[in-house]
Amino acid sequence: MNGLPIDVTPTLLLALPGLRLYALCVIVLVIKMIAVGVYTVRVRGRLKVSTNPEDAARMGAQVTDVEPPEVARVLRAHRNDLENIPNFFALGLAAVLVGAPAIPLKVALIAFTAARVAFSIAYLRSLQPWRSVSFGVGLLSMLALMVMILLRILFS
Amino acid sequence: MNGLPIDVTPTLLLALPGLRLYALCVIVLVIKMIAVGVYTVRVRGRLKVSTNPEDAARMGAQVTDVEPPEVARVLRAHRNDLENIPNFFALGLAAVLVGAPAIPLKVALIAFTAARVAFSIAYLRSLQPWRSVSFGVGLLSMLALMVMILLRILFS
Amino acid sequence: MNGLPIDVTPTLLLALPGLRLYALCVIVLVIKMIAVGVYTVRVRGRLKVSTNPEDAARMGAQVTDVEPPEVARVLRAHRNDLENIPNFFALGLAAVLVGAPAIPLKVALIAFTAARVAFSIAYLRSLQPWRSVSFGVGLLSMLALMVMILLRILFS
Repeated sequence: MNGLPIDVTPTLLLALPGLRLYALCVIVLVIKMIAVGVYTVRVRGRLKVSTNPEDAARMGAQVTDVEPPEVARVLRAHRNDLENIPNFFALGLAAVLVGAPAIPLKVALIAFTAARVAFSIAYLRSLQPWRSVSFGVGLLSMLALMVMILLRILFS
Repeated sequence: MNGLPIDVTPTLLLALPGLRLYALCVIVLVIKMIAVGVYTVRVRGRLKVSTNPEDAARMGAQVTDVEPPEVARVLRAHRNDLENIPNFFALGLAAVLVGAPAIPLKVALIAFTAARVAFSIAYLRSLQPWRSVSFGVGLLSMLALMVMILLRILFS
Repeated sequence: MNGLPIDVTPTLLLALPGLRLYALCVIVLVIKMIAVGVYTVRVRGRLKVSTNPEDAARMGAQVTDVEPPEVARVLRAHRNDLENIPNFFALGLAAVLVGAPAIPLKVALIAFTAARVAFSIAYLRSLQPWRSVSFGVGLLSMLALMVMILLRILFS
Protein backbone atom coordinates (compact mmCIF):
# COMPACT_ATOMS: atom_id res chain seq x y z
CA MET A 1 0.00 0.00 0.00
CA ASN A 2 1.08 3.59 -0.42
CA GLY A 3 -0.06 6.95 0.80
CA LEU A 4 -2.00 8.12 -2.25
CA PRO A 5 -5.64 9.10 -1.82
CA ILE A 6 -7.49 5.93 -2.69
CA ASP A 7 -9.60 7.27 -5.56
CA VAL A 8 -6.86 8.92 -7.61
CA THR A 9 -6.42 6.02 -10.01
CA PRO A 10 -10.06 5.11 -10.72
CA THR A 11 -10.70 8.77 -11.50
CA LEU A 12 -7.73 8.82 -13.85
CA LEU A 13 -8.77 5.53 -15.46
CA LEU A 14 -12.39 6.57 -15.95
CA ALA A 15 -11.00 9.35 -18.14
CA LEU A 16 -9.60 6.72 -20.54
CA PRO A 17 -11.61 6.95 -23.77
CA GLY A 18 -13.62 3.78 -24.21
CA LEU A 19 -13.20 2.28 -20.72
CA ARG A 20 -16.81 2.88 -19.73
CA LEU A 21 -18.07 1.56 -23.06
CA TYR A 22 -15.76 -1.46 -22.87
CA ALA A 23 -17.14 -2.30 -19.41
CA LEU A 24 -20.69 -1.98 -20.76
CA CYS A 25 -19.89 -4.28 -23.72
CA VAL A 26 -18.45 -6.87 -21.31
CA ILE A 27 -21.71 -6.78 -19.34
CA VAL A 28 -23.86 -7.17 -22.47
CA LEU A 29 -21.78 -10.07 -23.79
CA VAL A 30 -21.65 -11.90 -20.46
CA ILE A 31 -25.43 -11.59 -20.09
CA LYS A 32 -25.78 -12.88 -23.65
CA MET A 33 -23.59 -15.91 -22.86
CA ILE A 34 -25.53 -16.59 -19.66
CA ALA A 35 -28.72 -16.47 -21.75
CA VAL A 36 -27.32 -19.09 -24.15
CA GLY A 37 -26.49 -21.27 -21.13
CA VAL A 38 -30.00 -20.87 -19.71
CA TYR A 39 -31.40 -21.73 -23.15
CA THR A 40 -29.37 -24.98 -23.17
CA VAL A 41 -30.91 -25.95 -19.85
CA ARG A 42 -34.40 -25.17 -21.16
CA VAL A 43 -33.93 -27.18 -24.38
CA ARG A 44 -32.63 -30.14 -22.35
CA GLY A 45 -35.59 -29.79 -19.98
CA ARG A 46 -38.09 -29.72 -22.86
CA LEU A 47 -36.50 -32.80 -24.45
CA LYS A 48 -36.16 -34.45 -21.03
CA VAL A 49 -32.49 -35.36 -21.55
CA SER A 50 -29.47 -34.87 -19.32
CA THR A 51 -25.77 -35.69 -19.60
CA ASN A 52 -25.36 -36.19 -15.83
CA PRO A 53 -26.98 -39.24 -14.21
CA GLU A 54 -27.35 -37.34 -10.90
CA ASP A 55 -29.49 -34.71 -12.69
CA ALA A 56 -31.46 -37.21 -14.76
CA ALA A 57 -32.56 -38.89 -11.53
CA ARG A 58 -33.90 -35.63 -10.08
CA MET A 59 -35.53 -34.45 -13.30
CA GLY A 60 -37.03 -37.72 -14.43
CA ALA A 61 -34.94 -37.31 -17.59
CA GLN A 62 -33.05 -39.74 -19.77
CA VAL A 63 -29.23 -39.84 -19.68
CA THR A 64 -27.73 -39.20 -23.12
CA ASP A 65 -24.21 -39.71 -24.40
CA VAL A 66 -24.98 -38.18 -27.77
CA GLU A 67 -26.68 -34.78 -27.57
CA PRO A 68 -29.97 -34.39 -29.49
CA PRO A 69 -29.58 -32.07 -32.54
CA GLU A 70 -31.40 -29.15 -30.82
CA VAL A 71 -29.01 -29.28 -27.86
CA ALA A 72 -25.97 -29.78 -30.09
CA ARG A 73 -26.90 -26.59 -31.98
CA VAL A 74 -27.00 -24.50 -28.81
CA LEU A 75 -23.68 -25.99 -27.68
CA ARG A 76 -22.09 -25.10 -31.02
CA ALA A 77 -23.38 -21.53 -30.75
CA HIS A 78 -22.00 -21.33 -27.21
CA ARG A 79 -18.67 -22.81 -28.26
CA ASN A 80 -18.35 -20.26 -31.02
CA ASP A 81 -18.78 -17.61 -28.33
CA LEU A 82 -15.94 -19.21 -26.35
CA GLU A 83 -13.75 -19.05 -29.44
CA ASN A 84 -14.39 -15.35 -29.97
CA ILE A 85 -15.60 -13.42 -26.93
CA PRO A 86 -12.63 -13.94 -24.56
CA ASN A 87 -10.37 -12.81 -27.43
CA PHE A 88 -12.45 -9.67 -27.76
CA PHE A 89 -12.25 -9.06 -24.01
CA ALA A 90 -8.43 -9.08 -24.23
CA LEU A 91 -8.18 -7.08 -27.48
CA GLY A 92 -10.77 -4.52 -26.40
CA LEU A 93 -9.12 -3.85 -23.07
CA ALA A 94 -5.66 -3.73 -24.63
CA ALA A 95 -6.96 -1.15 -27.11
CA VAL A 96 -8.41 0.95 -24.27
CA LEU A 97 -5.24 0.73 -22.15
CA VAL A 98 -2.81 1.62 -24.93
CA GLY A 99 -5.01 4.61 -25.73
CA ALA A 100 -6.59 3.78 -29.08
CA PRO A 101 -8.32 6.79 -30.69
CA ALA A 102 -11.76 7.28 -29.17
CA ILE A 103 -14.10 7.24 -32.19
CA PRO A 104 -12.85 4.16 -34.10
CA LEU A 105 -12.36 2.36 -30.77
CA LYS A 106 -15.95 2.94 -29.75
CA VAL A 107 -17.27 1.95 -33.18
CA ALA A 108 -15.34 -1.35 -33.02
CA LEU A 109 -16.51 -2.12 -29.46
CA ILE A 110 -20.16 -1.51 -30.37
CA ALA A 111 -19.92 -3.34 -33.72
CA PHE A 112 -18.44 -6.46 -32.12
CA THR A 113 -21.00 -6.54 -29.33
CA ALA A 114 -23.98 -6.03 -31.64
CA ALA A 115 -22.61 -8.59 -34.13
CA ARG A 116 -22.25 -11.27 -31.45
CA VAL A 117 -25.79 -10.74 -30.18
CA ALA A 118 -27.03 -11.05 -33.78
CA PHE A 119 -24.83 -14.12 -34.30
CA SER A 120 -26.43 -15.98 -31.38
CA ILE A 121 -29.94 -15.24 -32.60
CA ALA A 122 -29.04 -16.25 -36.17
CA TYR A 123 -27.36 -19.47 -35.01
CA LEU A 124 -30.19 -20.58 -32.74
CA ARG A 125 -32.79 -19.85 -35.45
CA SER A 126 -30.66 -21.40 -38.27
CA LEU A 127 -30.74 -18.11 -40.17
CA GLN A 128 -28.24 -17.96 -42.99
CA PRO A 129 -26.56 -15.87 -44.40
CA TRP A 130 -27.15 -13.80 -41.23
CA ARG A 131 -25.11 -16.13 -39.04
CA SER A 132 -22.11 -15.85 -41.38
CA VAL A 133 -22.54 -12.09 -41.86
CA SER A 134 -22.69 -11.39 -38.11
CA PHE A 135 -19.71 -13.70 -37.52
CA GLY A 136 -17.78 -11.75 -40.17
CA VAL A 137 -18.64 -8.38 -38.62
CA GLY A 138 -17.36 -9.66 -35.27
CA LEU A 139 -14.12 -10.76 -36.89
CA LEU A 140 -13.65 -7.47 -38.74
CA SER A 141 -14.23 -5.55 -35.51
CA MET A 142 -11.42 -7.53 -33.89
CA LEU A 143 -9.11 -6.88 -36.86
CA ALA A 144 -9.89 -3.16 -36.54
CA LEU A 145 -8.94 -3.28 -32.83
CA MET A 146 -5.66 -4.99 -33.77
CA VAL A 147 -4.79 -2.24 -36.25
CA MET A 148 -5.55 0.47 -33.66
CA ILE A 149 -3.39 -1.29 -31.06
CA LEU A 150 -0.50 -1.74 -33.49
CA LEU A 151 -0.58 1.92 -34.51
CA ARG A 152 -0.41 2.97 -30.84
CA ILE A 153 2.30 0.57 -29.67
CA LEU A 154 4.50 1.16 -32.70
CA PHE A 155 4.15 4.90 -33.18
CA SER A 156 3.58 6.55 -29.80
CA MET B 1 8.26 5.90 -24.31
CA ASN B 2 8.15 9.02 -22.21
CA GLY B 3 10.25 10.57 -19.49
CA LEU B 4 8.26 9.44 -16.44
CA PRO B 5 10.03 7.41 -13.77
CA ILE B 6 9.25 3.84 -14.73
CA ASP B 7 7.48 2.76 -11.57
CA VAL B 8 4.99 5.59 -11.24
CA THR B 9 2.11 3.70 -12.85
CA PRO B 10 2.43 0.31 -11.10
CA THR B 11 2.54 2.14 -7.78
CA LEU B 12 -0.58 4.08 -8.71
CA LEU B 13 -2.33 0.94 -9.95
CA LEU B 14 -1.45 -1.11 -6.86
CA ALA B 15 -3.45 1.48 -4.91
CA LEU B 16 -6.58 0.46 -6.86
CA PRO B 17 -8.92 -1.27 -4.42
CA GLY B 18 -9.22 -4.92 -5.35
CA LEU B 19 -6.38 -5.13 -7.90
CA ARG B 20 -4.19 -7.31 -5.66
CA LEU B 21 -7.13 -9.52 -4.75
CA TYR B 22 -8.21 -9.78 -8.39
CA ALA B 23 -4.71 -10.92 -9.38
CA LEU B 24 -4.78 -13.51 -6.58
CA CYS B 25 -8.20 -14.81 -7.72
CA VAL B 26 -6.88 -15.15 -11.29
CA ILE B 27 -3.99 -17.25 -9.97
CA VAL B 28 -6.29 -19.50 -7.90
CA LEU B 29 -8.70 -20.02 -10.81
CA VAL B 30 -5.97 -20.72 -13.36
CA ILE B 31 -4.37 -23.28 -11.02
CA LYS B 32 -7.81 -24.84 -10.54
CA MET B 33 -8.30 -25.12 -14.31
CA ILE B 34 -4.82 -26.61 -14.75
CA ALA B 35 -5.74 -29.15 -12.05
CA VAL B 36 -8.88 -30.14 -13.98
CA GLY B 37 -6.72 -30.59 -17.09
CA VAL B 38 -4.21 -32.75 -15.20
CA TYR B 39 -7.11 -34.78 -13.83
CA THR B 40 -8.37 -35.42 -17.40
CA VAL B 41 -4.95 -36.80 -18.34
CA ARG B 42 -4.93 -39.04 -15.25
CA VAL B 43 -8.43 -40.41 -15.89
CA ARG B 44 -7.50 -41.16 -19.51
CA GLY B 45 -4.28 -42.83 -18.33
CA ARG B 46 -6.16 -44.99 -15.81
CA LEU B 47 -8.70 -46.05 -18.45
CA LYS B 48 -5.93 -46.45 -21.04
CA VAL B 49 -7.74 -44.39 -23.68
CA SER B 50 -6.53 -41.56 -25.88
CA THR B 51 -8.10 -39.41 -28.55
CA ASN B 52 -4.82 -38.95 -30.45
CA PRO B 53 -3.34 -41.95 -32.30
CA GLU B 54 0.20 -40.55 -31.81
CA ASP B 55 -0.33 -40.64 -27.99
CA ALA B 56 -2.09 -44.00 -27.97
CA ALA B 57 0.98 -45.52 -29.64
CA ARG B 58 3.35 -44.18 -26.96
CA MET B 59 1.08 -45.03 -24.01
CA GLY B 60 -0.08 -48.44 -25.13
CA ALA B 61 -3.62 -47.00 -25.00
CA GLN B 62 -6.68 -47.49 -27.16
CA VAL B 63 -7.82 -44.70 -29.53
CA THR B 64 -11.40 -43.60 -28.78
CA ASP B 65 -13.80 -41.50 -30.78
CA VAL B 66 -16.42 -41.49 -28.06
CA GLU B 67 -15.09 -40.47 -24.64
CA PRO B 68 -15.77 -42.88 -21.75
CA PRO B 69 -18.31 -41.43 -19.24
CA GLU B 70 -15.62 -40.64 -16.63
CA VAL B 71 -13.62 -38.59 -19.15
CA ALA B 72 -16.77 -36.95 -20.56
CA ARG B 73 -17.67 -35.79 -17.03
CA VAL B 74 -14.29 -34.06 -16.52
CA LEU B 75 -14.56 -32.46 -19.97
CA ARG B 76 -18.03 -31.11 -19.12
CA ALA B 77 -16.72 -29.67 -15.83
CA HIS B 78 -13.82 -28.07 -17.73
CA ARG B 79 -16.12 -26.73 -20.42
CA ASN B 80 -18.34 -25.13 -17.80
CA ASP B 81 -15.21 -23.35 -16.53
CA LEU B 82 -14.56 -22.08 -20.06
CA GLU B 83 -18.11 -20.73 -20.19
CA ASN B 84 -17.73 -18.83 -16.92
CA ILE B 85 -14.18 -18.07 -15.83
CA PRO B 86 -13.01 -15.91 -18.78
CA ASN B 87 -16.20 -13.87 -18.32
CA PHE B 88 -15.28 -13.37 -14.67
CA PHE B 89 -11.74 -12.34 -15.64
CA ALA B 90 -13.18 -9.57 -17.83
CA LEU B 91 -15.92 -8.47 -15.41
CA GLY B 92 -13.64 -8.55 -12.36
CA LEU B 93 -10.93 -6.47 -14.01
CA ALA B 94 -13.48 -4.03 -15.44
CA ALA B 95 -14.91 -3.60 -11.92
CA VAL B 96 -11.44 -2.92 -10.50
CA LEU B 97 -10.51 -0.47 -13.28
CA VAL B 98 -13.72 1.58 -13.11
CA GLY B 99 -13.23 1.83 -9.35
CA ALA B 100 -16.00 -0.33 -7.88
CA PRO B 101 -16.42 0.19 -4.10
CA ALA B 102 -13.82 -1.85 -2.22
CA ILE B 103 -15.89 -4.00 0.15
CA PRO B 104 -18.60 -5.34 -2.19
CA LEU B 105 -15.98 -5.74 -4.93
CA LYS B 106 -13.78 -7.90 -2.72
CA VAL B 107 -16.74 -9.95 -1.49
CA ALA B 108 -17.78 -10.68 -5.09
CA LEU B 109 -14.24 -11.60 -6.18
CA ILE B 110 -13.81 -14.02 -3.26
CA ALA B 111 -17.34 -15.47 -3.60
CA PHE B 112 -16.89 -16.23 -7.30
CA THR B 113 -13.48 -17.84 -6.79
CA ALA B 114 -14.59 -19.99 -3.87
CA ALA B 115 -17.78 -20.98 -5.69
CA ARG B 116 -15.90 -22.16 -8.77
CA VAL B 117 -13.49 -24.26 -6.73
CA ALA B 118 -16.50 -25.82 -4.99
CA PHE B 119 -18.24 -26.30 -8.36
CA SER B 120 -15.35 -28.34 -9.78
CA ILE B 121 -15.23 -30.61 -6.73
CA ALA B 122 -19.02 -31.05 -6.78
CA TYR B 123 -19.05 -31.79 -10.51
CA LEU B 124 -16.25 -34.35 -10.43
CA ARG B 125 -17.79 -36.11 -7.43
CA SER B 126 -21.38 -35.91 -8.87
CA LEU B 127 -22.56 -34.03 -5.77
CA GLN B 128 -25.96 -32.45 -6.17
CA PRO B 129 -27.42 -30.00 -5.16
CA TRP B 130 -23.89 -28.68 -4.39
CA ARG B 131 -22.94 -28.43 -8.04
CA SER B 132 -26.01 -26.31 -8.83
CA VAL B 133 -25.65 -24.21 -5.66
CA SER B 134 -21.98 -23.39 -6.34
CA PHE B 135 -22.79 -22.64 -9.98
CA GLY B 136 -25.52 -20.26 -8.80
CA VAL B 137 -23.21 -18.47 -6.37
CA GLY B 138 -20.72 -17.95 -9.19
CA LEU B 139 -23.46 -16.48 -11.38
CA LEU B 140 -24.73 -14.19 -8.61
CA SER B 141 -21.19 -12.93 -7.98
CA MET B 142 -20.94 -11.97 -11.64
CA LEU B 143 -24.32 -10.22 -11.52
CA ALA B 144 -23.12 -8.28 -8.45
CA LEU B 145 -19.99 -7.20 -10.36
CA MET B 146 -22.22 -6.02 -13.25
CA VAL B 147 -24.30 -3.87 -10.90
CA MET B 148 -21.17 -2.31 -9.36
CA ILE B 149 -19.76 -1.55 -12.81
CA LEU B 150 -23.02 -0.01 -14.02
CA LEU B 151 -23.28 2.22 -10.94
CA ARG B 152 -19.75 3.51 -11.53
CA ILE B 153 -19.95 4.06 -15.28
CA LEU B 154 -23.37 5.70 -15.12
CA PHE B 155 -23.04 7.86 -12.01
CA SER B 156 -19.41 8.95 -11.63
CA MET C 1 -16.29 12.61 -16.63
CA ASN C 2 -13.65 14.83 -15.10
CA GLY C 3 -11.50 17.72 -16.19
CA LEU C 4 -8.19 15.91 -16.81
CA PRO C 5 -6.57 16.27 -20.22
CA ILE C 6 -7.79 13.22 -22.07
CA ASP C 7 -4.45 11.65 -22.93
CA VAL C 8 -2.83 11.70 -19.50
CA THR C 9 -3.69 8.12 -18.63
CA PRO C 10 -2.79 6.35 -21.89
CA THR C 11 0.59 8.07 -21.77
CA LEU C 12 1.10 6.91 -18.19
CA LEU C 13 -0.06 3.38 -19.01
CA LEU C 14 2.16 3.07 -22.10
CA ALA C 15 5.07 3.55 -19.68
CA LEU C 16 4.09 0.32 -17.90
CA PRO C 17 6.82 -2.23 -18.64
CA GLY C 18 5.38 -5.00 -20.78
CA LEU C 19 2.07 -3.37 -21.76
CA ARG C 20 3.07 -2.88 -25.39
CA LEU C 21 4.47 -6.41 -25.59
CA TYR C 22 1.38 -7.85 -23.88
CA ALA C 23 -0.86 -6.15 -26.46
CA LEU C 24 1.31 -7.54 -29.27
CA CYS C 25 1.10 -11.08 -27.81
CA VAL C 26 -2.70 -10.78 -27.62
CA ILE C 27 -2.78 -9.86 -31.31
CA VAL C 28 -0.51 -12.78 -32.30
CA LEU C 29 -2.54 -15.29 -30.26
CA VAL C 30 -5.91 -14.05 -31.52
CA ILE C 31 -4.69 -14.25 -35.13
CA LYS C 32 -3.43 -17.77 -34.40
CA MET C 33 -6.84 -18.80 -33.02
CA ILE C 34 -8.63 -17.26 -36.00
CA ALA C 35 -6.27 -19.27 -38.25
CA VAL C 36 -7.25 -22.50 -36.46
CA GLY C 37 -10.91 -21.59 -36.99
CA VAL C 38 -10.34 -20.92 -40.70
CA TYR C 39 -8.49 -24.24 -40.94
CA THR C 40 -11.53 -26.04 -39.45
CA VAL C 41 -13.74 -24.53 -42.14
CA ARG C 42 -11.27 -25.60 -44.85
CA VAL C 43 -11.01 -29.19 -43.56
CA ARG C 44 -14.81 -29.44 -43.42
CA GLY C 45 -15.01 -28.03 -46.95
CA ARG C 46 -12.47 -30.51 -48.28
CA LEU C 47 -14.32 -33.43 -46.63
CA LYS C 48 -17.68 -31.96 -47.69
CA VAL C 49 -19.20 -32.28 -44.20
CA SER C 50 -21.12 -29.80 -42.10
CA THR C 51 -22.72 -29.86 -38.67
CA ASN C 52 -25.46 -27.38 -39.62
CA PRO C 53 -28.18 -28.50 -42.07
CA GLU C 54 -28.60 -24.89 -43.30
CA ASP C 55 -24.91 -24.85 -44.36
CA ALA C 56 -24.91 -28.37 -45.79
CA ALA C 57 -27.73 -27.31 -48.14
CA ARG C 58 -25.75 -24.33 -49.46
CA MET C 59 -22.43 -26.21 -49.76
CA GLY C 60 -23.71 -29.46 -51.18
CA ALA C 61 -22.20 -31.11 -48.08
CA GLN C 62 -23.31 -33.97 -45.89
CA VAL C 63 -24.65 -33.28 -42.37
CA THR C 64 -22.62 -35.10 -39.71
CA ASP C 65 -23.35 -35.74 -36.07
CA VAL C 66 -19.97 -37.33 -35.43
CA GLU C 67 -17.04 -35.25 -36.66
CA PRO C 68 -14.57 -36.98 -39.03
CA PRO C 69 -11.16 -37.59 -37.33
CA GLU C 70 -9.45 -34.76 -39.23
CA VAL C 71 -12.06 -32.24 -38.04
CA ALA C 72 -12.08 -33.66 -34.50
CA ARG C 73 -8.30 -33.10 -34.32
CA VAL C 74 -8.59 -29.41 -35.25
CA LEU C 75 -11.42 -28.99 -32.73
CA ARG C 76 -9.28 -30.55 -29.99
CA ALA C 77 -6.39 -28.23 -30.82
CA HIS C 78 -8.78 -25.27 -30.73
CA ARG C 79 -10.33 -26.42 -27.46
CA ASN C 80 -6.89 -26.69 -25.88
CA ASP C 81 -6.39 -23.04 -26.89
CA LEU C 82 -9.65 -22.15 -25.12
CA GLU C 83 -8.40 -23.91 -21.98
CA ASN C 84 -5.14 -21.95 -21.94
CA ILE C 85 -5.13 -18.69 -23.87
CA PRO C 86 -7.87 -16.77 -21.98
CA ASN C 87 -6.05 -17.72 -18.75
CA PHE C 88 -2.86 -16.26 -20.18
CA PHE C 89 -4.70 -13.09 -21.19
CA ALA C 90 -5.79 -12.59 -17.57
CA LEU C 91 -2.47 -13.58 -15.97
CA GLY C 92 -0.37 -11.57 -18.42
CA LEU C 93 -2.39 -8.41 -17.95
CA ALA C 94 -2.47 -8.85 -14.17
CA ALA C 95 1.33 -9.19 -14.21
CA VAL C 96 1.66 -5.99 -16.25
CA LEU C 97 -0.78 -4.03 -14.07
CA VAL C 98 0.76 -5.02 -10.73
CA GLY C 99 4.16 -4.03 -12.12
CA ALA C 100 6.02 -7.32 -12.56
CA PRO C 101 9.75 -6.82 -13.22
CA ALA C 102 10.32 -5.99 -16.89
CA ILE C 103 12.80 -8.63 -18.05
CA PRO C 104 11.25 -11.83 -16.62
CA LEU C 105 7.81 -10.50 -17.53
CA LYS C 106 8.77 -10.01 -21.15
CA VAL C 107 10.49 -13.40 -21.33
CA ALA C 108 7.34 -15.13 -20.01
CA LEU C 109 5.04 -13.24 -22.42
CA ILE C 110 7.19 -14.15 -25.43
CA ALA C 111 7.74 -17.76 -24.29
CA PHE C 112 4.01 -18.39 -23.86
CA THR C 113 3.11 -16.87 -27.20
CA ALA C 114 5.81 -18.75 -29.13
CA ALA C 115 4.95 -22.00 -27.32
CA ARG C 116 1.27 -21.77 -28.23
CA VAL C 117 2.02 -21.12 -31.90
CA ALA C 118 4.33 -24.16 -31.86
CA PHE C 119 1.66 -26.18 -30.02
CA SER C 120 -0.94 -25.58 -32.74
CA ILE C 121 1.45 -26.60 -35.51
CA ALA C 122 2.52 -29.71 -33.57
CA TYR C 123 -1.08 -30.69 -32.81
CA LEU C 124 -2.36 -30.28 -36.37
CA ARG C 125 0.62 -32.23 -37.76
CA SER C 126 0.46 -34.92 -35.01
CA LEU C 127 4.04 -34.16 -33.99
CA GLN C 128 5.04 -35.68 -30.68
CA PRO C 129 6.88 -35.02 -28.37
CA TRP C 130 6.73 -31.46 -29.76
CA ARG C 131 3.06 -31.02 -28.90
CA SER C 132 3.70 -32.00 -25.26
CA VAL C 133 6.90 -29.95 -25.04
CA SER C 134 5.26 -26.79 -26.37
CA PHE C 135 2.24 -27.35 -24.09
CA GLY C 136 4.65 -27.63 -21.14
CA VAL C 137 6.50 -24.44 -22.06
CA GLY C 138 3.17 -22.61 -22.18
CA LEU C 139 2.27 -23.94 -18.73
CA LEU C 140 5.66 -23.02 -17.25
CA SER C 141 5.35 -19.49 -18.65
CA MET C 142 2.02 -19.14 -16.85
CA LEU C 143 3.52 -20.45 -13.60
CA ALA C 144 6.34 -17.90 -13.95
CA LEU C 145 3.76 -15.12 -14.36
CA MET C 146 2.00 -16.35 -11.21
CA VAL C 147 5.22 -16.18 -9.20
CA MET C 148 5.94 -12.64 -10.44
CA ILE C 149 2.42 -11.52 -9.53
CA LEU C 150 2.58 -13.08 -6.07
CA LEU C 151 5.94 -11.41 -5.33
CA ARG C 152 4.48 -8.02 -6.29
CA ILE C 153 1.15 -8.28 -4.49
CA LEU C 154 2.68 -9.71 -1.31
CA PHE C 155 5.84 -7.64 -1.01
CA SER C 156 5.26 -4.20 -2.48
